[in-house]
Amino acid sequence: MSIWFTEKQTEHFGITAEITRTYVSEKTEFQQLDMVETKEFGNMLLLDGMVMTTEKDEFVYHEMVAHVPLHTHPNPENVLVVGGGDGGVIREILKHPEVQKATLVEIDGKVIEYSKQYLPSIAGALDDARVEVKVADGFMHIAESTNEYDVIMVDSTEPVGPAVNLFTKGFYEGISRALKDDGIFVAQTDNPWFQKQLVADAFRDIKATFPVTRLYTANIPTYPSGLWTFTLGSKVYDPLEVEDDRFHPFETNYYTRQIHTAAFALPKFVQDITEGK
Amino acid sequence: MSIWFTEKQTEHFGITAEITRTYVSEKTEFQQLDMVETKEFGNMLLLDGMVMTTEKDEFVYHEMVAHVPLHTHPNPENVLVVGGGDGGVIREILKHPEVQKATLVEIDGKVIEYSKQYLPSIAGALDDARVEVKVADGFMHIAESTNEYDVIMVDSTEPVGPAVNLFTKGFYEGISRALKDDGIFVAQTDNPWFQKQLVADAFRDIKATFPVTRLYTANIPTYPSGLWTFTLGSKVYDPLEVEDDRFHPFETNYYTRQIHTAAFALPKFVQDITEGK
Repeated sequence: MSIWFTEKQTEHFGITAEITRTYVSEKTEFQQLDMVETKEFGNMLLLDGMVMTTEKDEFVYHEMVAHVPLHTHPNPENVLVVGGGDGGVIREILKHPEVQKATLVEIDGKVIEYSKQYLPSIAGALDDARVEVKVADGFMHIAESTNEYDVIMVDSTEPVGPAVNLFTKGFYEGISRALKDDGIFVAQTDNPWFQKQLVADAFRDIKATFPVTRLYTANIPTYPSGLWTFTLGSKVYDPLEVEDDRFHPFETNYYTRQIHTAAFALPKFVQDITEGK
Repeated sequence: MSIWFTEKQTEHFGITAEITRTYVSEKTEFQQLDMVETKEFGNMLLLDGMVMTTEKDEFVYHEMVAHVPLHTHPNPENVLVVGGGDGGVIREILKHPEVQKATLVEIDGKVIEYSKQYLPSIAGALDDARVEVKVADGFMHIAESTNEYDVIMVDSTEPVGPAVNLFTKGFYEGISRALKDDGIFVAQTDNPWFQKQLVADAFRDIKATFPVTRLYTANIPTYPSGLWTFTLGSKVYDPLEVEDDRFHPFETNYYTRQIHTAAFALPKFVQDITEGK
């Protein structure tokens, strides 16, 4: 017998993967959490039936969330991650020697617990001395923070369930207040093939709040359409005007100095979305 | 009742799409050919169970095969497409005013016939006066051509079935002979997530034949992993050294002057594949 899981990424399209073990299938206080072993992608975390991360392709998302803003900021000492309980973004943040403190605010403690158990190569960095982990509502944490962070990264699910507040104009304004005067914000903003309106709305609302707003993309095989967008809002620094000597030579699997810039070259139909067409 | 088709893109992973009509399901002289109507991607052509093209996302592949080499060559008058019986690459080629003749050599006449019937927005250009359509073996056509074409594009299936000869060193050498002294060749060369060895072998063999060899990528949602590679071999011209005024301003949905260059910025793990790592 072979067992296959299917994620309907839209009403009429999905991905399907062979599963060899189910480690966890649990309704937490906030969402359905499944941790499975797949043949193609290794261990895989799903929230509300959507693939969040897998051992095989996790590096793309985590590198692209972290290294673009951290290389854009000249001295990112204090960094906040909202969501991201699997710890992958934190692992990448810690590659930057400027970072003195990285705070993770994850609403669902079970995500952290099971990631440490079943995704140790991703979650291992959560135990680093520079990291503070808070199990709390990221929306509230942002509302209570003022002029505090150099970089804030929102590593959320799609805007269903607990993440729905994280795709609002009010939240982006809160992020702006929580950042220092030269702070940078980045969020995952879904895909332009199936969620055109979501990408357009997020870009428009972030642009209304930040002087420099830019969208970039990366290929993630287990995410809908394989083309993921990230929207960066910055008070001062432009990711396209970073000097070559700012880039650290640490090891990566996806991100490079060239990708840092090329990721902002958008396919025409994506460019149109950012221009409200 | 809802009907879903599943393509196992690897032994353990696939995509699945809801189908509303099956227009054709036929074993041709060369391969299994299916033409279906999907809810998410419109009409879809499958060969040997693999998605070849869909109405919704076809523009990515066809634009990226055609416009990169045709803008790299300063005067592409005579162009050959091997495979590509759906006509999408031909449609894009005809946007270039320099092109005087475009020859399509497709081994399976049924692909052409059913594409004209069910994919008219893709195949319509096949009736253009500048186009010659030959139903013949592309491998043989190349073997019989010398110093003839400015640009040759290989728009084949993956190397199973009739396309197996099109991924060989001998074929690339034949391509080189069929090209003029400043000719350019481009082929689709599969994806780096699931077909690492294929990408590596194709790049190495093309590089052994052409002075300038470069790999570029594009996002195609219905192709395995969503990240597709194209390998370009050129006798003289470098796609990264094209003057800005060479680019035509015609309408596209994916390709832009910025994408032309950015597509060659490879994710680190893909760069490693081209370097034989």
